[in-house]
Amino acid sequence: MGQPRFDITAIGRVESPLTDPESAPNQGDEGAPDAWLAFDPEVLEALEGVHAGDEIIVLTWLDRARRDVLRVHPRGDVSRPEQGVFSTRSPHRPNPIGLHRVEVVSIDGGRVRVRKLEALDRTPIVDVKPVLSAEISER
Amino acid sequence: MGQPRFDITAIGRVESPLTDPESAPNQGDEGAPDAWLAFDPEVLEALEGVHAGDEIIVLTWLDRARRDVLRVHPRGDVSRPEQGVFSTRSPHRPNPIGLHRVEVVSIDGGRVRVRKLEALDRTPIVDVKPVLSAEISER
Repeated sequence: MGQPRFDITAIGRVESPLTDPESAPNQGDEGAPDAWLAFDPEVLEALEGVHAGDEIIVLTWLDRARRDVLRVHPRGDVSRPEQGVFSTRSPHRPNPIGLHRVEVVSIDGGRVRVRKLEALDRTPIVDVKPVLSAEISER
Repeated sequence: MGQPRFDITAIGRVESPLTDPESAPNQGDEGAPDAWLAFDPEVLEALEGVHAGDEIIVLTWLDRARRDVLRVHPRGDVSRPEQGVFSTRSPHRPNPIGLHRVEVVSIDGGRVRVRKLEALDRTPIVDVKPVLSAEISER
């Protein structure tokens, strides 16, 4: 594609018991385990203001996903017709950014413990954002 | 940083009356206008299954943001103490990915009309995802 490209840099990594893409849950509320977010020393200042109990959105780079896939069977179920990846949460997509809404359990220096994260062990973290109230309530 | 880097590629652009970063609203529900998402022909297949009325999450690359900022005054209000950018929605952050939850108004080929988008005109789009029900309801 002749489109602009940008450099995205990992700011940390997921530490999780999930290592097998085949058996990993599709979403955090489908049996995902608690995990650690291990941040690089260079970005620790950016974590100030994140506290235990907060709901945050973790953005990851799904480094084991395919980028040449535009259509998938939803949830890998071949009995369901294919859909465009932008109407699914498939990890396979042109820019494989993962979006994970999780609760912070505790913070230990540059390591943040979160509940129910479906990302695989060693997945690069690229951003963290607070959940906004307008995103929590139904509109 | 000695961290892994990845290539992120624009899949389209925002077309919006918002051109001035200074006067742009901070969030979509703070007076942002409707806008078009203009997708590249190469990714149109990935849009199949996105329909008028859907709530989607648009991910953008905030190309006018600064990447060397780790702390900010929330909402640019210098009377408030600085916080780490990961506890704010500041566009300025190591990887300036914008997250915009919007409603689809209509679809015209590769152009998708959405409500209340606070992104600036010509902002690169990098991904689109459906909103999951678990993200809508309070937990």
